[in-house]
Amino acid sequence: MYHVLTDQDIEKLVSMKSIVGAIERTFEEQANGTLVSPPRFRLETEQGDLVFTAGAATAIEKVIGFRVYDTYTNDLDGHEQLVCVFDSDTGVFKGIVIGNLLGAVRTGAIGGVAIKSMARTDAERLAVIGTGVQARTQLEAAVAVRDIKHVRVFSRNQENREAFAAQMMNQLEVEVVAVDSPKNCIRGADIVICATNSGTPVFDAEWLQPGVHINTVGPKSIKRHEVPIELGVRSSVIATDSIEQLKAYPTPHFLVGTPDEDRIIQLSEVVAGKTLGRKGQDDITLFCSVGLAGTEVVVANEIMKEAVDKE
Amino acid sequence: MYHVLTDQDIEKLVSMKSIVGAIERTFEEQANGTLVSPPRFRLETEQGDLVFTAGAATAIEKVIGFRVYDTYTNDLDGHEQLVCVFDSDTGVFKGIVIGNLLGAVRTGAIGGVAIKSMARTDAERLAVIGTGVQARTQLEAAVAVRDIKHVRVFSRNQENREAFAAQMMNQLEVEVVAVDSPKNCIRGADIVICATNSGTPVFDAEWLQPGVHINTVGPKSIKRHEVPIELGVRSSVIATDSIEQLKAYPTPHFLVGTPDEDRIIQLSEVVAGKTLGRKGQDDITLFCSVGLAGTEVVVANEIMKEAVDKE
Repeated sequence: MYHVLTDQDIEKLVSMKSIVGAIERTFEEQANGTLVSPPRFRLETEQGDLVFTAGAATAIEKVIGFRVYDTYTNDLDGHEQLVCVFDSDTGVFKGIVIGNLLGAVRTGAIGGVAIKSMARTDAERLAVIGTGVQARTQLEAAVAVRDIKHVRVFSRNQENREAFAAQMMNQLEVEVVAVDSPKNCIRGADIVICATNSGTPVFDAEWLQPGVHINTVGPKSIKRHEVPIELGVRSSVIATDSIEQLKAYPTPHFLVGTPDEDRIIQLSEVVAGKTLGRKGQDDITLFCSVGLAGTEVVVANEIMKEAVDKE
Repeated sequence: MYHVLTDQDIEKLVSMKSIVGAIERTFEEQANGTLVSPPRFRLETEQGDLVFTAGAATAIEKVIGFRVYDTYTNDLDGHEQLVCVFDSDTGVFKGIVIGNLLGAVRTGAIGGVAIKSMARTDAERLAVIGTGVQARTQLEAAVAVRDIKHVRVFSRNQENREAFAAQMMNQLEVEVVAVDSPKNCIRGADIVICATNSGTPVFDAEWLQPGVHINTVGPKSIKRHEVPIELGVRSSVIATDSIEQLKAYPTPHFLVGTPDEDRIIQLSEVVAGKTLGRKGQDDITLFCSVGLAGTEVVVANEIMKEAVDKE
């Protein structure tokens, strides 16, 4: 029988470690050519659109399915993303996830794979800028792949950063401290997670220490970017989950058109062992998260497996 | 809150009269240009595909959504069609229908609109060839739009036709008699519903009486067709729910390439009062059902309204 899961189920069922594992296997499929991820399909009307990202991972994960979401811009309750999963060997329907949390879990897990593949193996100090759901899932995934001992969090809103610190410390059983400036947050960090909606850089590249790895999840167009442009030149390795998508944005990515553009590599190539995610212990590495189509389906499938285990 | 409905809910909730009404309004939207129904979108893999028919009816029905189904050819349990419905004014998710029954209800209701628009208003004798789910929903819809008094049913399997007759007589409170030949079935009928999987004609055009209307739901390609080819020449009006789709089949429709091709009209034009569905009382009329994209969403929405009423 199939599953019908909502955000409440996701909260209960998510094991970030197993989801990071599923995303890693999906990147292996991408590197080996068994990930099918055609361009987005849009159903357009004058009032708003439905956008479909369909995909399949047919060799290891054996799933086919899609995510669909709307582009209506009102603030009404009841906007939901749907992720539907079918067995790619048989076509049998496995289930649907209804809600907006899965997308953040997915992006978090991709960030976790980037950290696992690119950050120093001895990384233990982590900085988070941002306190939204993306910041939360990125941190959960980081803790799943590295032995993180100290976390600092900054957001402009004191209440938000203190609530985030308290909640995450309780949940992850790791020291999480709210700090009052981005500089205090980043100083000494081995890993920086930037997950804001800021259109201007939220930190200065000078503050970074050698050997740091950065995940940027928020805005990264040439017009609006949460990280400093010079991070491109400073980074010895720059990776993304989809070069194709990174190069296809209507407003160009901040590295497109720079000399660094040609150095951007696919995270999947690192996962598959075809190239290095980190060259030297003191290098700076950068991961630009854009969101690879097809991965939502893999994450939904992984959560459905957890649901079966807990039944 | 959104709905999650299955075939069992559909069985309980379907009011064929209200669904025929919703399909009629959708044809009006088609005639007035507010029905959005782009070509199908396919996610293709070596093992099988997912096929999406997305659509929106934005003026009257105010729905946007899609149907998705798989093309895997195994006989496993668990293949499901999904129909998802959103509000086309707001983008808010209204619900999902999971199961294979909705498609047949939809095709039945389209057949009902054809009968309402094309059959004689005094039609009371109806012949059904076929006893599957399509035959059942076509008959349900016919009874919702005409004062049917006598029904005859034929299929090659005696057990099936007798079970169908007993079940439908009980359900519809109309006389339904199983007969032992297609000729006995069709003789004297005002309406003929042909809903088989036959690749060769299941009746002879000579058996039809003047004034009859025919719905053909099953195979109708030049290679495999359940109705006789000469039905085209014999019919004074030939309509379909989607000329575009009728002309787009890889194996051509049995009327494509004949002198009758250019006479085929859109059922929506009849519904909107732009052309006649029947010219004379003694004319033969023919409806070729192909299945207009977007209509599944309207039917699912109508059933969700029933679900609210019964809560």
